[in-house]
Amino acid sequence: MPSESQLHAHIAAQARDLGPFCVTGPGDDCAALRASPSDPAAKLLITVDQLIESRHFTGETPLDLIARKAIARSVSDIAACAGTPAWALATGALPTTFPTDKARELIDALNRWARDFACPIVGGDLASTPPGTPIHLSVTIAGTPHPTRGPVLRSTAQPGDAIWVTGAIGNSFASGRHLTFQPRVREAQWLADTVGSDLHAMIDLSDGLGRDAARIALASNARLIINHIPLASDALSRPPLQAAADGEDYELLFTTPPHIQLPPFVPNTNPPTSLTRIGTVVEGTGCIIIDPQGNEHDATHLGWDHQ
Amino acid sequence: MPSESQLHAHIAAQARDLGPFCVTGPGDDCAALRASPSDPAAKLLITVDQLIESRHFTGETPLDLIARKAIARSVSDIAACAGTPAWALATGALPTTFPTDKARELIDALNRWARDFACPIVGGDLASTPPGTPIHLSVTIAGTPHPTRGPVLRSTAQPGDAIWVTGAIGNSFASGRHLTFQPRVREAQWLADTVGSDLHAMIDLSDGLGRDAARIALASNARLIINHIPLASDALSRPPLQAAADGEDYELLFTTPPHIQLPPFVPNTNPPTSLTRIGTVVEGTGCIIIDPQGNEHDATHLGWDHQ
Repeated sequence: MPSESQLHAHIAAQARDLGPFCVTGPGDDCAALRASPSDPAAKLLITVDQLIESRHFTGETPLDLIARKAIARSVSDIAACAGTPAWALATGALPTTFPTDKARELIDALNRWARDFACPIVGGDLASTPPGTPIHLSVTIAGTPHPTRGPVLRSTAQPGDAIWVTGAIGNSFASGRHLTFQPRVREAQWLADTVGSDLHAMIDLSDGLGRDAARIALASNARLIINHIPLASDALSRPPLQAAADGEDYELLFTTPPHIQLPPFVPNTNPPTSLTRIGTVVEGTGCIIIDPQGNEHDATHLGWDHQ
Repeated sequence: MPSESQLHAHIAAQARDLGPFCVTGPGDDCAALRASPSDPAAKLLITVDQLIESRHFTGETPLDLIARKAIARSVSDIAACAGTPAWALATGALPTTFPTDKARELIDALNRWARDFACPIVGGDLASTPPGTPIHLSVTIAGTPHPTRGPVLRSTAQPGDAIWVTGAIGNSFASGRHLTFQPRVREAQWLADTVGSDLHAMIDLSDGLGRDAARIALASNARLIINHIPLASDALSRPPLQAAADGEDYELLFTTPPHIQLPPFVPNTNPPTSLTRIGTVVEGTGCIIIDPQGNEHDATHLGWDHQ
């Protein structure tokens, strides 16, 4: 298969005539849909992600954490649009050699985590695959858009905007945080409540700060310049560009007009979720990171080539 | 992995606390959801199916027909609830050895068929898998329920009902019809328009007439007795019970009160879709088929153990 970003570009280029229900189609964290063709506003956010053994988790990962990650990744996409999770669908393709009690344990864990993230599983599909085939899960999650701000997209960053991130970046996979991260649903809602239409654009950081920031740039037809990255404590001893390429942070990157002031932490979060200003949107294309020595690095391809 | 019907029973038994959006959860062809917690009526039908190489299609199947089947199977689930397709999500997990031009061809075919079935693809996910992994597609389709009848479920057949099927049964996989079948969306809508609340229960025949009829029986706490099966012309020379076990017919099985008269064909269908009365719902459990010699056969497990 070719690079997934090439195929995503192909999909985005083909995305037309998406019918009377579609408000926002392929190319964002979620699609936004109307409840009926006569309804002018988006009423539903929807996203789907796959979780595949050896690619998104190792064979030794406990089933509970596999299930948690499967649900949490899609919840993070709902957060990226400032939505509230509502319900989920799940599919599982398990090898015929997968034991019955483990299959039940996995199903129960998916149900438990989906409830925990406020999007109970309302349907799904199971299939058997030949022995040796990687475990394959897919999770579709629907959410409701923020009642006043509506869906927050990738495509609405503006030159002059400040760029912000929640939390700290880097070393997520090696540290195991990719299995235990908290999707930033509350943080996104607080931002939409607090800054409203000044919350210009948002994305969740799944593939690497560099590559994901470049997606905002591409969608918004702008250039993102990042000059500071808040590093996770276990990522401090490594080069800062490494953290921007690690991926799987599931923090939010968002932009606001430059005059917007935000507190250092999102209120009522425990542990506190930090808010850090990391750069500026300018005219142009792509994404660069300026390192502490003042050197510029093209970050457009820094990270994983998948979404 | 254990039998999928065992796991489905486990899932149905766990299905509780499905949140304020869920009207009908696991155990039917589609889940039915409210647009908002304050909305009393179901506004959205949703279903997801997986399509896996070697299981649901052979390696020699043209990509166009793989894409068609992936979309059409989920459309058939919308038809089984008498809904109208509205939009779709698709995922693909393709081996790294899958050629770029073939990946584009598959994506384009999925988009084309989804538009053709009136549910454009509004989002999705792509992933790469190790060489040798079967191609894995999943398709989620949302539909709108019939405006007056609402979602038609499996669980509302009543003792005394007549049992009907659309079209002809048997030999779908061997004949290739499993790749070219027409989901019975128009037929289901005509039934809901015409018989309204007398359209008691409905299911699409994916796993075999016997097993799928038994699903109506189980969900409705009733017994289905089938004494006539309209066979496909290329299934006539085989024992009739074989056709009830073949599966992949994607015809509709439905029940109405016994006094309901239906025409031999659904109006305005070309080629004409036949309507055949095949049996009766009685008190009890399970499903039996009475063969032309008058012998009874337990059909509860006749067919494929997957949905």
